[in-house]
Amino acid sequence: MSLKRKGIQAEREIIHMLWERGWAALRVAGSGSMQFPSPDILAGNRLRVLAIECKVSRNDKKYFLKDEIKQLNNFSSYFGAESWVALKYYREEWRFINTEDLRETKRGYCISKDVAKIKGLLIDELLQLSK
Amino acid sequence: MSLKRKGIQAEREIIHMLWERGWAALRVAGSGSMQFPSPDILAGNRLRVLAIECKVSRNDKKYFLKDEIKQLNNFSSYFGAESWVALKYYREEWRFINTEDLRETKRGYCISKDVAKIKGLLIDELLQLSK
Repeated sequence: MSLKRKGIQAEREIIHMLWERGWAALRVAGSGSMQFPSPDILAGNRLRVLAIECKVSRNDKKYFLKDEIKQLNNFSSYFGAESWVALKYYREEWRFINTEDLRETKRGYCISKDVAKIKGLLIDELLQLSK
Repeated sequence: MSLKRKGIQAEREIIHMLWERGWAALRVAGSGSMQFPSPDILAGNRLRVLAIECKVSRNDKKYFLKDEIKQLNNFSSYFGAESWVALKYYREEWRFINTEDLRETKRGYCISKDVAKIKGLLIDELLQLSK
């Protein structure tokens, strides 16, 4: 399976989990290729809006480009959304990490599997947060 | 140009207009083909969220399938969005019509060019509405 295909499948998995829990969720077309900032997924439940960037990782450390996170935060500030990164490690559940919890490096941001498991929320924890 | 391509171009035109006016807007991937309801475009400005279905028409009357409008309203009620139809007639400006202003027919909904021009809002009128 191509990387792009795997990415789409991962996004669909999250969208399913969100609808199952009563949230409306959608995949964004051409995210990453449009001239305007946009997340991979947008979800809402009348009270909160979540802008989510998805990543599947087989490595212990996951890196994000500075611009990737900047664009996510930029989109969220215009739309009125919360910025989250969804991380899926092999044979682990999805972890949701607020962009403020990513560690800044010279070239971007980084998070390790250990930190993701400590600071990252499971989907039900994410959705139960109050605004 | 294929119909699909024309549809995407029309959606992009609206997305440009929205960003120019300080709204965050995105195209939805696979709208119409996903198992979950979704609009063509979603836009937000921290206070309001607009779920928009786009149509370009050369005919005087524009028809919508019952299910198309039902799904749009369904998505909006879960997400917490307003449901709008964007209509573009040849050599005319985009008109935005609230789904409540579509006339119900046996098989779906209908709007004529005349009614669209009377009841439809121009984009600046749409964005200036208070919630």
